[in-house]
Amino acid sequence: MDYFVEEREAFNDYLREQWEKPESRLEESMSYSLLAGGKRLRPVLFLATAALYRDDWRNLLPFALGIEMIHTYSLIHDDLPAMDNDDFRRGRPTNHKIYGEALAILAGDALLTGAFGFMSDIPGEKGDKLLRAVNLAASRSGYRGMVYGQSLDVAAEGQELTLNQLREIHYHKTGDLMVLSLTCGAILGGAAEKEIEAWEKYGENLGLAFQIVDDILDEVGSFADLGKTIHSDAESEKNTYVTLLGLSEAKKAAAAAIEEANASLKEISRDTDVFQRLSQDLLVRKA
Amino acid sequence: MDYFVEEREAFNDYLREQWEKPESRLEESMSYSLLAGGKRLRPVLFLATAALYRDDWRNLLPFALGIEMIHTYSLIHDDLPAMDNDDFRRGRPTNHKIYGEALAILAGDALLTGAFGFMSDIPGEKGDKLLRAVNLAASRSGYRGMVYGQSLDVAAEGQELTLNQLREIHYHKTGDLMVLSLTCGAILGGAAEKEIEAWEKYGENLGLAFQIVDDILDEVGSFADLGKTIHSDAESEKNTYVTLLGLSEAKKAAAAAIEEANASLKEISRDTDVFQRLSQDLLVRKA
Repeated sequence: MDYFVEEREAFNDYLREQWEKPESRLEESMSYSLLAGGKRLRPVLFLATAALYRDDWRNLLPFALGIEMIHTYSLIHDDLPAMDNDDFRRGRPTNHKIYGEALAILAGDALLTGAFGFMSDIPGEKGDKLLRAVNLAASRSGYRGMVYGQSLDVAAEGQELTLNQLREIHYHKTGDLMVLSLTCGAILGGAAEKEIEAWEKYGENLGLAFQIVDDILDEVGSFADLGKTIHSDAESEKNTYVTLLGLSEAKKAAAAAIEEANASLKEISRDTDVFQRLSQDLLVRKA
Repeated sequence: MDYFVEEREAFNDYLREQWEKPESRLEESMSYSLLAGGKRLRPVLFLATAALYRDDWRNLLPFALGIEMIHTYSLIHDDLPAMDNDDFRRGRPTNHKIYGEALAILAGDALLTGAFGFMSDIPGEKGDKLLRAVNLAASRSGYRGMVYGQSLDVAAEGQELTLNQLREIHYHKTGDLMVLSLTCGAILGGAAEKEIEAWEKYGENLGLAFQIVDDILDEVGSFADLGKTIHSDAESEKNTYVTLLGLSEAKKAAAAAIEEANASLKEISRDTDVFQRLSQDLLVRKA
């Protein structure tokens, strides 16, 4: 991606600074997964949204790190033998393959806990606004948010789903974290309530499109492109947009979600061109 | 225990009210472990500390629930096959025995996330003070707190430890959560910094005594008294104060910790008699 460059660089610098010197075996395992690379999409979306509303968005880097820590913990736990049982992630062995199951579980727990530590300690931010964002992060990533989505996903294993059921899973599993990134960015940026709602809608549809494209890439991508075992979802008989809709209809559904996402951007008073490009580009992402 | 009765009742009522009607299989598994009983020691300590400083301590019930949710998640993850592999807890099958490993992992994740949701949403509390307490909860229960202790414990399996190593494990594994309960109670109560520090010292020693007594009970208790498999620690060759010090020296160490705990109480301007009784009573707790 050639946009959000400043936010991504600032985030990667801060991330490295915080995590390149682990002080225990536990922190080493956390750092292993945190520094494994990836697009940093969620923290960058958070920072870029905040940056539309305030110049000193760098002050919010700890909150961005918290978001990435939540995302990273969810991947570690998701890869566990009792869950998806994946051996590779981003081209490297998964956390439990290196550190063992026990430490991988604890690394996930520690990343999740630490996320709230970073998010709740930002000097100079107004207490009430920061509390609102922390609270939103907890609810969007918890038992009625992301973890709920994961639990539906686990229950769906081996079951044939309807499109609505699949959509509900991904609404929570993927969408909630996108929504939280964008809305927390807007809240901490100081956006008006109406605009916070528009970011929410944008995030919901971006998350949906993102998941559909992910399913498509899983079907037609290559190991080298994605760094994880291809067709693992299909082999474990998971429901995906591709298995449910077919490749062509799945592409149409992604396009429709992008269109809705971009419609929401029109309600926002700032220059959101780059967000429009981001969602548009999802459609041509190595697929 | 015949004290902290008001706090315990208020807490149990609030806990039931919040969790007796789970709305998903995930929430059912969370509720199963949350409502499994237990002494509620940590949330009650939190509330009782706050109650020394303010009459409207009931406003802090959501924070108390958050503390209990952190404690409960740690038990669920600790019992997992990859960790202690326990089949029973408080006389009932452990979470993964009922709901399966995947959902037990997620129930733990969701309890931990939800804890920060409850703690960060307390109408009427001052933002900055609440943020400080939330932040302290995250650091005391995270990668330099409770989870760190768990990771040391995992690494110690099959190793022979020195007394200092064992103490470090328990300082974090048990002590940190006690300290967080007491200090967050003092912070949200509005105590002076000097008193917050005294509560910290009290909590450290109470946690130490608590763990030693736990080890002793594990050795000499009975299944009916404790509701979990007896001698499971000894069988898995875990280090305990009893295996390291012997029963008699372990009892002395517990008594010494209690004495130190009670010395800290003297620095507190409120009537702390009942806290003194609590720590004293630990020593005669079914042992």
